[in-house]
Amino acid sequence: MINFLYILEINKLFKNYFKFKGTEILTIGSELLFGDILNSNAKWIAEELSKIGLIASRQTTIGDSVPVISQEILNASKRSSLLITTGGLGPTEDDLTKEAIAQAFKTTLVQNKEVLLEISAKTKRDIKELGILNKQAAFPKDSEIIANATGTAPGIIWEPKENFVIMVFPGVPSELKNMWEVNAAPWIKKHLAFQTKSFSKRILLNDIGESIVAEDCKEIFKSKNPEVAPYAAPGQVKIRITAKANSKVEANNLILPIEKEFKKKYKNKLLSSNEKSLSESVFKSLIEKNQTISIAESCTGGLLSLSFCQFPGASSIFMGGVVAYSNQQKINLLNVSKSKIEKYGAVSKEIAEEMAIGIKEITQTDWAISVSGIAGPSGGDNNKPVGLVHFCVAGPNIINSSYRKFGDFKTRAEIQNLSVTICLDSLRKSLLSI
Amino acid sequence: MINFLYILEINKLFKNYFKFKGTEILTIGSELLFGDILNSNAKWIAEELSKIGLIASRQTTIGDSVPVISQEILNASKRSSLLITTGGLGPTEDDLTKEAIAQAFKTTLVQNKEVLLEISAKTKRDIKELGILNKQAAFPKDSEIIANATGTAPGIIWEPKENFVIMVFPGVPSELKNMWEVNAAPWIKKHLAFQTKSFSKRILLNDIGESIVAEDCKEIFKSKNPEVAPYAAPGQVKIRITAKANSKVEANNLILPIEKEFKKKYKNKLLSSNEKSLSESVFKSLIEKNQTISIAESCTGGLLSLSFCQFPGASSIFMGGVVAYSNQQKINLLNVSKSKIEKYGAVSKEIAEEMAIGIKEITQTDWAISVSGIAGPSGGDNNKPVGLVHFCVAGPNIINSSYRKFGDFKTRAEIQNLSVTICLDSLRKSLLSI
Repeated sequence: MINFLYILEINKLFKNYFKFKGTEILTIGSELLFGDILNSNAKWIAEELSKIGLIASRQTTIGDSVPVISQEILNASKRSSLLITTGGLGPTEDDLTKEAIAQAFKTTLVQNKEVLLEISAKTKRDIKELGILNKQAAFPKDSEIIANATGTAPGIIWEPKENFVIMVFPGVPSELKNMWEVNAAPWIKKHLAFQTKSFSKRILLNDIGESIVAEDCKEIFKSKNPEVAPYAAPGQVKIRITAKANSKVEANNLILPIEKEFKKKYKNKLLSSNEKSLSESVFKSLIEKNQTISIAESCTGGLLSLSFCQFPGASSIFMGGVVAYSNQQKINLLNVSKSKIEKYGAVSKEIAEEMAIGIKEITQTDWAISVSGIAGPSGGDNNKPVGLVHFCVAGPNIINSSYRKFGDFKTRAEIQNLSVTICLDSLRKSLLSI
Repeated sequence: MINFLYILEINKLFKNYFKFKGTEILTIGSELLFGDILNSNAKWIAEELSKIGLIASRQTTIGDSVPVISQEILNASKRSSLLITTGGLGPTEDDLTKEAIAQAFKTTLVQNKEVLLEISAKTKRDIKELGILNKQAAFPKDSEIIANATGTAPGIIWEPKENFVIMVFPGVPSELKNMWEVNAAPWIKKHLAFQTKSFSKRILLNDIGESIVAEDCKEIFKSKNPEVAPYAAPGQVKIRITAKANSKVEANNLILPIEKEFKKKYKNKLLSSNEKSLSESVFKSLIEKNQTISIAESCTGGLLSLSFCQFPGASSIFMGGVVAYSNQQKINLLNVSKSKIEKYGAVSKEIAEEMAIGIKEITQTDWAISVSGIAGPSGGDNNKPVGLVHFCVAGPNIINSSYRKFGDFKTRAEIQNLSVTICLDSLRKSLLSI
């Protein structure tokens, strides 16, 4: 296989960075408009941009239509200096992004022979028999090509008019990510080195409502640089502190005093402010304190185990989990007593405790968490309604039981997610004491 | 607590439905622009619209700024007849959607006394001490209010100019969903009853590449009504067949012949075309065939169990799962033999088989699936690289083992997700024979 690498002539582009008007993201694909898939690319690009100090001012999603895409690109070229697109680079008749770009800037698509050879090598098909794949080797005249190491859809980087650069990526997330890291991110860093940028830090508060924080911290929220913004997440409030500065170090110096104020104000309700999520915070805390954990869950169906196993290195703290969905498996896999299930029911303080103690003994871990509840939408009754969930955290010298009634309006997925949040926060608090 | 219900005077709005110019979705919130959260609301609304025959032609995301929101709403009012917004209805200073709407259509915000009373009742705060919550009771003059049964942020439905209706929802997903189902969906159905609509059916093909399908079915993809569009998902190709018609029945009649062609062409690679996802398809197949299942997983960390437990009624087919992350837990929880782990290593055909057989025996299910692999990014070596995953499906008379090497470019999450897809497809194929 040819290992062809397109070297970006990065100095040719963006001579006018000092007039930089901002960034937009354009995700192209009818499957997004039909609601068939989540727009994870827009989130991912926004996150990556924000790491290097750029905040996209707009995300737009449109379908696979040349006039619509073409018009949207022209509009973006008037509003912004950098447009990042995903989607529409595949081989099918619905893949029209390059055609639309060519039309927007009144140019034609030209076949690139080196890309043709690479597609031929990657697909092990003769260059004359590439069929519809041929179109993946066509690019707007004068545009640069971004290599795609893992797929057959290379990207584009192009300055079709003064002070406007368009970066074009395929919609397949793994291809986008690889191309971004290898080519796009270094290019942006280099060309926007002298721009004022925005860097953020996020603080996560647990067990508190947004309106209470908003009233408590009215004065802090008036700050202009850094800007401080709260937003509500299920059972949590996130605070984003964003400083405009020429470097990350300078930004952090602006952010630090605000961060300290929050730390002072909230103490126990505040997670380590270096972490982005509760699960990551608890995960790192277990690693730092050299503590192991095991899980016994029912209604969360594996989600609680996954909240640890999503992280690389999980094997050093996570020993095992049991999804004991049926009563019989609570008995078989967790040594829960049959008579207690009959007496108290599976969704009860007693059984949650037996589950946590059971898995802790089997796996010989320092900690264990259990969840037993009714995620619905059916299966509840007046006594034990849908949304009733019992929790238990068992530690070296601690058995911490609790329950919640999430009420009628929560969906199954919401009940599962909120239950995991409660478990993790309960463990987080318990870990503070050791 | 007051149980106040705002009755929508639905006949007052949208007299000019016959000039209907289309629908857009506008999601408002800087947290989306920073990439802090996935835009699940845009997907959910798009999906709900498509169920009732409307396809939003555009999704836009912008930040919490009055001039930006206001301008975007005015632009949308020129392009479309129905604009659905989420976000910016909270009590904080960043919640500016209503201010922006008022500014766009040159009107003022007016306090609604009934809503004030309701907020006071819901928050158990005296009406004179609502503080920042006061602003959640202010609405553009002449707009209608959409009740929010579960939160303090009511929505809006308003026709500020001829042939343009704006529907405004909070960003909290559970509140949005409830308000949509109770008020918005019925309203849209009623007012757009006489519109030509678009209804879709989706077909899922496994184990085949998009470009092969595109070449195989070139002629089918040329169809205009219904339109037929393929798109690639990891390890799968989805085909969406969309018919324009006055009713769902009429649309289905147009879709049926195309669906039959695909069924004929792909047989075993084609999932039940009534299902949206592989997991749902396998789940329903287990229920129909009255078969039970259990799971033993390592590197997928709970995700495989969750792919069954995400569905209501999982308890009728899913008995239990074990996330045996460490070798010791494979021995403790699944009765895997210690000597075999030492001989073959945990990531091997032999151990995957023992895991499947182990959980099947413990839980006494008809079927069991196991996964053992290296999700990375570290933990691999030359012999067993990151991305190597072994699978086993054990059934009544079958032990079906397989493995994959996913290669260097896949992330941990991608390896976990692809592994689950392979397990489910392997089970799907095994279930065809019974």
